[in-house]
Amino acid sequence: MKTIIEKYGHKRVTVVEGGITRHRSIFNGLKVFAENEFSSHLLQKPEVVIIHDAVRPFVEEDIVSKVVMAAKEHGAAGAIRPLVSTVIASAADGCLDHSLERARYRASEMPQAFLFDIIYEAYQQCTDYDLDYGTECLHLALKYCKTNAKLVEGTPDLWKVTYKRDLYAAESIIKDNLSQQVCVITSVKETLAQVGFLLPESLKSQIKVEAISISPSKNDSCLQSIISGQCYNFVCVNDKRWAIQETQELVDMLEKSNIPLLYPVVLILVHLDIPENNSFSIEMEDLTMIKKFARETKKKNILVYGLLIQYKDPLLLQETVNSAAALIMALIKDRNPELIGQLLVA
Amino acid sequence: MKTIIEKYGHKRVTVVEGGITRHRSIFNGLKVFAENEFSSHLLQKPEVVIIHDAVRPFVEEDIVSKVVMAAKEHGAAGAIRPLVSTVIASAADGCLDHSLERARYRASEMPQAFLFDIIYEAYQQCTDYDLDYGTECLHLALKYCKTNAKLVEGTPDLWKVTYKRDLYAAESIIKDNLSQQVCVITSVKETLAQVGFLLPESLKSQIKVEAISISPSKNDSCLQSIISGQCYNFVCVNDKRWAIQETQELVDMLEKSNIPLLYPVVLILVHLDIPENNSFSIEMEDLTMIKKFARETKKKNILVYGLLIQYKDPLLLQETVNSAAALIMALIKDRNPELIGQLLVA
Repeated sequence: MKTIIEKYGHKRVTVVEGGITRHRSIFNGLKVFAENEFSSHLLQKPEVVIIHDAVRPFVEEDIVSKVVMAAKEHGAAGAIRPLVSTVIASAADGCLDHSLERARYRASEMPQAFLFDIIYEAYQQCTDYDLDYGTECLHLALKYCKTNAKLVEGTPDLWKVTYKRDLYAAESIIKDNLSQQVCVITSVKETLAQVGFLLPESLKSQIKVEAISISPSKNDSCLQSIISGQCYNFVCVNDKRWAIQETQELVDMLEKSNIPLLYPVVLILVHLDIPENNSFSIEMEDLTMIKKFARETKKKNILVYGLLIQYKDPLLLQETVNSAAALIMALIKDRNPELIGQLLVA
Repeated sequence: MKTIIEKYGHKRVTVVEGGITRHRSIFNGLKVFAENEFSSHLLQKPEVVIIHDAVRPFVEEDIVSKVVMAAKEHGAAGAIRPLVSTVIASAADGCLDHSLERARYRASEMPQAFLFDIIYEAYQQCTDYDLDYGTECLHLALKYCKTNAKLVEGTPDLWKVTYKRDLYAAESIIKDNLSQQVCVITSVKETLAQVGFLLPESLKSQIKVEAISISPSKNDSCLQSIISGQCYNFVCVNDKRWAIQETQELVDMLEKSNIPLLYPVVLILVHLDIPENNSFSIEMEDLTMIKKFARETKKKNILVYGLLIQYKDPLLLQETVNSAAALIMALIKDRNPELIGQLLVA
């Protein structure tokens, strides 16, 4: 835990030893506030405490805020969701005893919030049986402090990552969230003007696009502001062979920004190739260079891919650009670390 | 529905018009057996009927069989799962009324099975309120036929595909299931012997591998038997430039086999390249050819990718082959239709 806190630079976090059950762990967390009340200014007793599960990583600020405000008013509050399946009670012989009317019941989820004094009082009065077998904090507030928690409708995001399928879903949701915006950077050059215009246009139907032209000579504050805006996808269009030098500068900016710390950043190097005669080939040398560069930047959690746009027939350019946009979207959505350094052809 | 049944060649299926609620639809399904009893030999009244949701596509034969056997003995049976969250009852004011002890309750899932006479009798006695607002067939059997259903522990696979995240999870599970086995086909040629041996070895740590050597001249019954064995991934190693002719034969065999009907088949063309001098390049002509071929086979639901293994230094071959195996696994697991026709380099 301490390594995680340090790596991601979390502030105002105190780690408390867990107990052997859920309720014992929560109780340990609460005790820190109560017992340190007179000894430490860092851990003053709060008015409201929020209890949340790490297995619900997609909680939104909005629901946290709603639950806290409801707790302030009612003493306790928790997020709920409709039941997905009917709930039944089984008899001792493994047969159906009765089924519950689904509309009357809800699934109790997290986050929950409490006036500190209420939940701490409830935990202090808990029996060992409660601490060892109970699962529901709202129940404790009701049983020991006569506090009927306010129930707040939560979003589907609050689901509990429980089974392998939930890990798959979580991964897809994260990838989806990271694929909302792309920054297309084009050098200010006449040869690139058309692609620099067409490519963002083609991408716009699928993703939010920030398109910027930069002159490589000057340090660009516009780029700096986009990088600081939590964009996780970058497309650099160039007609110079892969422009590794300029790309390295972008990689350095990204590294300094701390953006790649939490999630991998996708960086696609688009090379506009204008063959002199009609013959055209990819040199091994280029492939090796991109691969080597990609292996280095991967250590910084930046995934580099190459993409070649051939500019032969101006009439076919739109089609080629559309195909490039489709490949870019596929690379951004997949974020596949195995494919880094590969050179795709639109 | 009829299009689906025809496309996938389902037999012994009768489509019945749905009702405006779940229970009304099920009742319509049951009526077909009862009312056609004397008029049609195709729809004889069954002893046991199984009721299942299309939103639980990963049901295993084993649980269906268990539920049917239990229904035969007890008159009714249904799959259950442990509750993931605590279930609570809310009061009229939106506050907690009480929470249920999680261990005493279960989520009722599908499949469920019934003696036909019991469930049909239950539906015939149903009130309009039951038909319009009820959700639980086991409840009807209990209420109208005094039949306490046997509850059968189901697997996590029985979950209900409800939210967007469930679609993500379902897609990943299907892709996972399709990535269990790969067939590596190598031409019987001396130059390929080493790769034909090393590549399957390297893949074996991650996936079940069937490796076969074929002489291109004779029609191979061994390959035919593998194709009929529900393998969804094929790797063809060749030293001839992409060997489109031979690959077309494999594509034709796959198409005839109906394997690509339900799920996309991945076909990776591995080209062992032995450069004459040290210079090496990829010709545009090759890229165009693979792309064109891939676009054609995609219409048959076969996804073709190219992969180049360079054979320069025998000492580095193992490393190159490992990198090829990693790329093959990534292509198989992703099954990305946007990347077809691309040429990756190991």
